[in-house]
Amino acid sequence: MKYSFKNDYSEGAHPRILEALLKSNMEQQNGYGLDEFSLAAEKLIQEKLNNSVSRVYFVSGGTQANLIVISAILRPHESVVAAATGHIFTNESGAIESTGHKVHGVETGDGKLRCEDIQNVLDIHTNVPHQVKQKLVYISNSTEIGTQYSKTELEDLSEFCRKHKLYLFMDGARLGNALTSEHNDLALEDIGRLTDAFYVGGTKNGALIGEAIVINNPDLQAEFGFHIKQKGAMLAKGRLLGIQFHELLKDDLYFELAAHANMQAMRLKEAFRNIGCSFLAETYTNQIFPILNLGMIDKLSQNFDFYVWKKIGDGTSAIRIITSWATQEETVDKFIEEISALN
Amino acid sequence: MKYSFKNDYSEGAHPRILEALLKSNMEQQNGYGLDEFSLAAEKLIQEKLNNSVSRVYFVSGGTQANLIVISAILRPHESVVAAATGHIFTNESGAIESTGHKVHGVETGDGKLRCEDIQNVLDIHTNVPHQVKQKLVYISNSTEIGTQYSKTELEDLSEFCRKHKLYLFMDGARLGNALTSEHNDLALEDIGRLTDAFYVGGTKNGALIGEAIVINNPDLQAEFGFHIKQKGAMLAKGRLLGIQFHELLKDDLYFELAAHANMQAMRLKEAFRNIGCSFLAETYTNQIFPILNLGMIDKLSQNFDFYVWKKIGDGTSAIRIITSWATQEETVDKFIEEISALN
Amino acid sequence: MKYSFKNDYSEGAHPRILEALLKSNMEQQNGYGLDEFSLAAEKLIQEKLNNSVSRVYFVSGGTQANLIVISAILRPHESVVAAATGHIFTNESGAIESTGHKVHGVETGDGKLRCEDIQNVLDIHTNVPHQVKQKLVYISNSTEIGTQYSKTELEDLSEFCRKHKLYLFMDGARLGNALTSEHNDLALEDIGRLTDAFYVGGTKNGALIGEAIVINNPDLQAEFGFHIKQKGAMLAKGRLLGIQFHELLKDDLYFELAAHANMQAMRLKEAFRNIGCSFLAETYTNQIFPILNLGMIDKLSQNFDFYVWKKIGDGTSAIRIITSWATQEETVDKFIEEISALN
Amino acid sequence: MKYSFKNDYSEGAHPRILEALLKSNMEQQNGYGLDEFSLAAEKLIQEKLNNSVSRVYFVSGGTQANLIVISAILRPHESVVAAATGHIFTNESGAIESTGHKVHGVETGDGKLRCEDIQNVLDIHTNVPHQVKQKLVYISNSTEIGTQYSKTELEDLSEFCRKHKLYLFMDGARLGNALTSEHNDLALEDIGRLTDAFYVGGTKNGALIGEAIVINNPDLQAEFGFHIKQKGAMLAKGRLLGIQFHELLKDDLYFELAAHANMQAMRLKEAFRNIGCSFLAETYTNQIFPILNLGMIDKLSQNFDFYVWKKIGDGTSAIRIITSWATQEETVDKFIEEISALN
Repeated sequence: MKYSFKNDYSEGAHPRILEALLKSNMEQQNGYGLDEFSLAAEKLIQEKLNNSVSRVYFVSGGTQANLIVISAILRPHESVVAAATGHIFTNESGAIESTGHKVHGVETGDGKLRCEDIQNVLDIHTNVPHQVKQKLVYISNSTEIGTQYSKTELEDLSEFCRKHKLYLFMDGARLGNALTSEHNDLALEDIGRLTDAFYVGGTKNGALIGEAIVINNPDLQAEFGFHIKQKGAMLAKGRLLGIQFHELLKDDLYFELAAHANMQAMRLKEAFRNIGCSFLAETYTNQIFPILNLGMIDKLSQNFDFYVWKKIGDGTSAIRIITSWATQEETVDKFIEEISALN
Repeated sequence: MKYSFKNDYSEGAHPRILEALLKSNMEQQNGYGLDEFSLAAEKLIQEKLNNSVSRVYFVSGGTQANLIVISAILRPHESVVAAATGHIFTNESGAIESTGHKVHGVETGDGKLRCEDIQNVLDIHTNVPHQVKQKLVYISNSTEIGTQYSKTELEDLSEFCRKHKLYLFMDGARLGNALTSEHNDLALEDIGRLTDAFYVGGTKNGALIGEAIVINNPDLQAEFGFHIKQKGAMLAKGRLLGIQFHELLKDDLYFELAAHANMQAMRLKEAFRNIGCSFLAETYTNQIFPILNLGMIDKLSQNFDFYVWKKIGDGTSAIRIITSWATQEETVDKFIEEISALN
Repeated sequence: MKYSFKNDYSEGAHPRILEALLKSNMEQQNGYGLDEFSLAAEKLIQEKLNNSVSRVYFVSGGTQANLIVISAILRPHESVVAAATGHIFTNESGAIESTGHKVHGVETGDGKLRCEDIQNVLDIHTNVPHQVKQKLVYISNSTEIGTQYSKTELEDLSEFCRKHKLYLFMDGARLGNALTSEHNDLALEDIGRLTDAFYVGGTKNGALIGEAIVINNPDLQAEFGFHIKQKGAMLAKGRLLGIQFHELLKDDLYFELAAHANMQAMRLKEAFRNIGCSFLAETYTNQIFPILNLGMIDKLSQNFDFYVWKKIGDGTSAIRIITSWATQEETVDKFIEEISALN
Repeated sequence: MKYSFKNDYSEGAHPRILEALLKSNMEQQNGYGLDEFSLAAEKLIQEKLNNSVSRVYFVSGGTQANLIVISAILRPHESVVAAATGHIFTNESGAIESTGHKVHGVETGDGKLRCEDIQNVLDIHTNVPHQVKQKLVYISNSTEIGTQYSKTELEDLSEFCRKHKLYLFMDGARLGNALTSEHNDLALEDIGRLTDAFYVGGTKNGALIGEAIVINNPDLQAEFGFHIKQKGAMLAKGRLLGIQFHELLKDDLYFELAAHANMQAMRLKEAFRNIGCSFLAETYTNQIFPILNLGMIDKLSQNFDFYVWKKIGDGTSAIRIITSWATQEETVDKFIEEISALN
């Protein structure tokens, strides 16, 4: 069977997580997120954020996290601004609209939203009350195409949002990869300070399932649990989420795993660059998008699985390669060998 | 006071409509659309459509018509394709999204949707079931910028939609203007045959309020009344809508009024063209968008009111001028005089 | 043809309203509720409320008013407490649920909600966050079965709601009838003071269409227009609503019409009582529910139309008779004659 | 620490499930429910149903299963009939209403819905289109208070629903307990034949999380995956659900675990009966509701945890005791000892 670089959720969980589940298995715990592990994991996140104001809520997946946060925050006439590549705009089967809210998808070159992008949306929505009111800005870090926000960029967005009374929400499905990238200058603490809400993605970084929603803005915390319940996201055995995040965060396994994924991606990037490839986007996280001709793609496809992402022209396409906490160094060695042989 | 060319709903109703209301005022009638006038008006529309299958439902406004039709037809995971200038995409405060459905807004030069525009949307939504499913195509005739569909264009769209199992819905807020334009080759009958649903706009063509929703596709008629009621659009005194449409349609007053509006717009267009103006869009209905410099705009603004629509550059802007059934020939004469004096 | 006592919306509008429409017909006015008449009508209501804080918004019907107010006010996890006879609970085709909110329907003998009814609902919803949170109390005055609230009752409800952080909203589809009933001790000013929001019903009291939503609580006024637009309720020719309410309110025609309707109902009630009838509910407004045997019902049905409302037993049923501003004294005379002849 | 009989989700998963997760952990699998385990688990269910038409979809929890099934099936104007004790009516924070649908809660003595209950709801909703249309009947088996449906009862409901064009949906959060009760005469195959949809609950019967939604009616299967995705319920690592159900079903561990839970509950029931207790409901599943006086409740509370469910009067209350797959025989022995000592 081919080895898959199609995504970062092909395997189960990091072994330490399964051990933690086994170890605590027969302890009786409160349900619905009131177990000791969930409470301890919340505390770990507050410590890393260096504040005790942020509240943490665990849910099982990213689409769920996005739709709960957004629908809990917005009033019916308010809308979301996102990059057109944003997961909520294009890959969640209309989940946000299903809760009643419009998402404005802005075309960007690199998947990153900038202040002027948001300003452009505001500028064409001044006909009150005939047009929706923009109220929340959604960004992903790292983005759906592997790019990431710098501290300056996030500070600019944060300031812009506060000035325009917009909430800033960061989708952190791959937050670990962003924060351990060699180009990163953001700390988790910065994100707690600069956003109204974000989530720490577990599913794509070693957990079986789980995203930790963090609500930093106290105004948005009130009665948040109702929304989790109403959208069907409050697990009876909330311990399943608490145990995993506790294990991932208690000694920074979370960041180790993400760093490992990034490193393997960078090794592959180097190999592609060495044979003269260009890339769809300049990324330093666990996603790379080398542009190859069809012959090369065919050859690499014999032993490895990946998505052909986008036709570029002249018989070339960008492919998407994703590494993860589970990607083995030896497999990457083998892949590099094959890449090098393309030359 | 300045005379307003800002829109086609500045005055009340055509006098014959008020007379009809007066005349029938003390007759007792059934409520909720079951009055004799509504039934007779439905029959008149069926006759003009030359079919007895289409069903007619009267509601008070265009946004209401759009949101009821679309939410009644679609299942939760289905979306709408529209031009980015489409009323539902940009001017209804998120009404469609509020019912749970995504609207894909496609940039077009002239406000008209073409098969390739729809195909492009379909092409980037093949990742089932992670992306919404396109199921309805929304077009406006005349469009929000005054352009209109030809018979060939509508036939092409209709065929494309049937082939791709998409419903075709036409917003007819200004349908009268489209069908009486000098460039029109569509009959009401064609629209009944080529669309699944459309509406005949009354508010902007002589009625106090009222749009006649026509559902041509029998599959979409079942229990439609529930949706009208649930969205708060079923008037207790449905006679108010029935009487107006009966009066407008019984001897084609509806088309006379629209033709009058178009003619006055064309007279103004001619005047602008005579002084060398170009236009934002080539229109033959009751909306024109001449491009003027700021000095000209200032001068015309002294006696007439209109929207400055869009900055063009070099100190020029397109203005929007709308005529209606109520626009008086003498007022247009006076306006033409002032336009000619700009030269 | 039989004369109908089935409802209070069988005729058109009071003649003075049609005159007002005619008179202003060719004046150019701003659209979307910004016309002079709507602004003047808002001012008239503020004067009657003796406050300048309340804001007024005109929409076309009662279901629309209910769904807009409730969905604009509530967050997604919040619910409404209503009497089981409440219009929103049983007669609006799920309009409130369609906006995402649960309505708790409480059985009451007389259609009136009391503090203990609300307390009972609160008492069985303490399992946070697994149960919805009650946040709004909906009452109708007069109620759907013709009863009405006294000042003391409304004060009690108002105090209870404030204490429990519940909003109090009054459906005033037949507010005129309540306030002009011989048993009434409430002034419009009291309602402005004791509720967070209410509406003044026009459709059932002489207007063609129209309800005037009044938002008393300033916290609930922000951006209310967006909700009117989004739900398809913002009429382009908002003047149609403004003119009617201006005419109804400027010299209290509104209350005259309601008093007339009440008086005719009370005359009929007296006639039924004279032949020994009992009633389903003790009412002093424009609805009466005499209990008759089938023979009597058949006889009265020959010349008059009304609903058979509820089987009582022993071959008797309550019928519903509704009078209106348009009910003629002579017709009531004739009906009384036939009632008296039943004896 | 006290031993908890508060619910059936206090522990983790049955050890065999954790083993299965461990064993398959590093296998690469497709995401989003297309993994081999999910496909195999679907097949196992189809075999037990003895049909190949039913389709199976795995989601993480019961509220989620309920809201997805119901919102996927119903059109906007359609409503649900349920017992007032039904989980969707009272314990899901308005989840169903949040998707736009009204739930009619019918008072029943024993938590079970009968044909006449449904007929009563239909009888008072004949005012088309002013009232919602009932379209789906929701039942729970076992019910929220531990009772269960007999084969005859389910056949009656099924026939009634087909006759009235209502869909029949069974919430099977505790289906295992129902089907292994000593009073049961229903087979899984019957449920497949008699309902349009149901789910097999895993969370409360040995899994970490997971419910297997089974759609029997082919008309309701189309594009069901979109709804799972849109509501945020499609796990990237769907394997987590597939592996668990595969393990639970491949040699009927699922039914063994449920039978164990039932047996322990029956042992406790016997003990309570022996000291003369009566019960709130006659149950044969894993929930019992003995009625005790406060002194007895206090005594039992010293070493065991349970909910005081309902005040009965005369200083007595019903308590709720729930057993599970994890309840140890020796703990029950000890509890029985204490119960017997109450005498």
